[in-house]
Amino acid sequence: MAASISFTRGVPSADLLPAEDIRASAAEALERDAAGALSYSPGGYLPLREWIGERHGVPASRVLMVNGSLQGLAFLADHFFHDRPGTIVLEDPTYDRTLTTFRHAGAEVRAVPLREDGVDAELFGAALAERPTVAYLIPTYQNPSGVCMSLETRRRVAALAREHGVLVIEDDPYGLLRFEGERLPTLHELDPENVIHSSSFTKTIAPGVRTGYLVLPEPLVAPFARISANTYIAPNSLAEATLAAYCWGGRFEPNVERATAELKRRRDAMERALVDHFPDGSTWTTPRGGYFFWVQLPEGMDAGAALADATEAGVPYVAGSDFTGSEYGRRCLRLAFSAVPAEQIGEGIERLGGVLAASHRTAAV
Amino acid sequence: MAASISFTRGVPSADLLPAEDIRASAAEALERDAAGALSYSPGGYLPLREWIGERHGVPASRVLMVNGSLQGLAFLADHFFHDRPGTIVLEDPTYDRTLTTFRHAGAEVRAVPLREDGVDAELFGAALAERPTVAYLIPTYQNPSGVCMSLETRRRVAALAREHGVLVIEDDPYGLLRFEGERLPTLHELDPENVIHSSSFTKTIAPGVRTGYLVLPEPLVAPFARISANTYIAPNSLAEATLAAYCWGGRFEPNVERATAELKRRRDAMERALVDHFPDGSTWTTPRGGYFFWVQLPEGMDAGAALADATEAGVPYVAGSDFTGSEYGRRCLRLAFSAVPAEQIGEGIERLGGVLAASHRTAAV
Repeated sequence: MAASISFTRGVPSADLLPAEDIRASAAEALERDAAGALSYSPGGYLPLREWIGERHGVPASRVLMVNGSLQGLAFLADHFFHDRPGTIVLEDPTYDRTLTTFRHAGAEVRAVPLREDGVDAELFGAALAERPTVAYLIPTYQNPSGVCMSLETRRRVAALAREHGVLVIEDDPYGLLRFEGERLPTLHELDPENVIHSSSFTKTIAPGVRTGYLVLPEPLVAPFARISANTYIAPNSLAEATLAAYCWGGRFEPNVERATAELKRRRDAMERALVDHFPDGSTWTTPRGGYFFWVQLPEGMDAGAALADATEAGVPYVAGSDFTGSEYGRRCLRLAFSAVPAEQIGEGIERLGGVLAASHRTAAV
Repeated sequence: MAASISFTRGVPSADLLPAEDIRASAAEALERDAAGALSYSPGGYLPLREWIGERHGVPASRVLMVNGSLQGLAFLADHFFHDRPGTIVLEDPTYDRTLTTFRHAGAEVRAVPLREDGVDAELFGAALAERPTVAYLIPTYQNPSGVCMSLETRRRVAALAREHGVLVIEDDPYGLLRFEGERLPTLHELDPENVIHSSSFTKTIAPGVRTGYLVLPEPLVAPFARISANTYIAPNSLAEATLAAYCWGGRFEPNVERATAELKRRRDAMERALVDHFPDGSTWTTPRGGYFFWVQLPEGMDAGAALADATEAGVPYVAGSDFTGSEYGRRCLRLAFSAVPAEQIGEGIERLGGVLAASHRTAAV
């Protein structure tokens, strides 16, 4: 059987991980501040919070370190929905783990359609008018769609949220992985007091450091410090001290550049292969950054039904229905190009295109 | 003003942290298996789970790594009480953060008095007869009381739990820090299928690695893997790979010996000072391991009321009422000797004894 070429996980492949620099940074961290790196750091290791705070124009006190940004979402779900019924407004489609996390906390989900330039602003405004508890958006290189919200939509969305008095959670793990196009302001930059910014070092350095962060409006600093302390006393000092040495040592930007260049090669390889090998009538928006293609198959095809065959053939993906409750999800699939070396992508997509066509023929019989 | 000598935090002091060995271990981990140390490790980094599994006589699959054992308690609370009303049976007094965690999840708390040889087995049995959801015990060098459950009580407690079909969570962060007396079997060793064992490297290596673990009965392996993935995808690979190199490299036992010897010096210093400087009629059970003295002041004295003065005098402690809802808590205080060098303990306890006496005289006026 041919080797597996998996398009499922939104992770960097091992060759993208800066192992040497992490090793040097861990050694530095333990030489310089062993007590800090090995003790509790409530809210997170201060020098790293300072580095992040500088980048986001806030004091370190407003940066809460978390053990991966998903943990931050769990804190947000707990804060906004524990013993308090309410609604979260988010994009359709959206990150599947966000849906799981907020539903687990008891939130009602109100999904607003995503367009090529981001969430549908008019429908977003209508949803906010119904007084939801909070909104959640992934404006830049969205997961799963790869869409980048336009500047105009960003401005409208930020203004609408403020107008309706609804806080926005901006999930931004991919923003720095920009292949082309101008850098757009984050929602947090447009309205720092009404936007909770969530990001992570998973995509810019490595998942195994499990280090994400929330940039919080001032009134949320104390409640989230409490949630953090009550959940695990403090996040991971050793990993964070290592990252602080890494970032303050000037290693962050060069690594983002290196990773982005490689990811762009993979994006290009996948797009060429999709054009060449996917069923006629398949559509997608070319991602200008990030990790994912979101492909809508032609009418009548079923991405969910074909998944078993694709997995069997060693070319699995994530079925669109994981990211949306809507009917159109059946025709969609998410393809991560982050974890596959560029030279294997063509072969994998060709194989997958064959599986999809065959699955469709079988279903039609 | 005299320097602060704090008896509040159950943490090791900086001089107990094996910084050099951690640095060497981090370097080794990243040399040997950079991809593993820097990628997601669902459920935890396998070589560390294997090392722990060997010690507890279970396969690695039954060891779930967590970001500090408190995070494991949060998972347990979620599993047993999310959207399911029920009761947790535990010791009175018990670890304050356990109370917070389980109450937050909606659990009713049923506290059973602790005796000098552990939880009152007869009352524990009566509580189990009322069909609680789960029980939680800290059998060895209990927090806050320092009590070590006798072998006889361990056997009775394990048998009662099995008889009533109630799972026991055994929280055991201090068990290896034994100053004297025979090593007693854990509840998990007495009944591995009916006991969830929770422990951590916070007290045996360092808090900043934020690495704890649960040893789970087989039927709980899949549900807890799901909770872990849904909360943060995976725990901290970098810290766990570092610990795996540390533990497999033969560094664990020597460090426990070194830390235990130093903690015993601190325990001895504190006991001498309590005898010399605490109000007549104060009582305690000498801890044979762990981190804490739990002192009951004479009738009429109020440990909660004196805390402000003690803090002012630079000798804070934790008031007993944090660990119990019962009236007797007012007379109790928890003194951690783990974080104070032995040569400072006498001075701190002398100062604190003076504060307690003065506070009592003032209240009596």
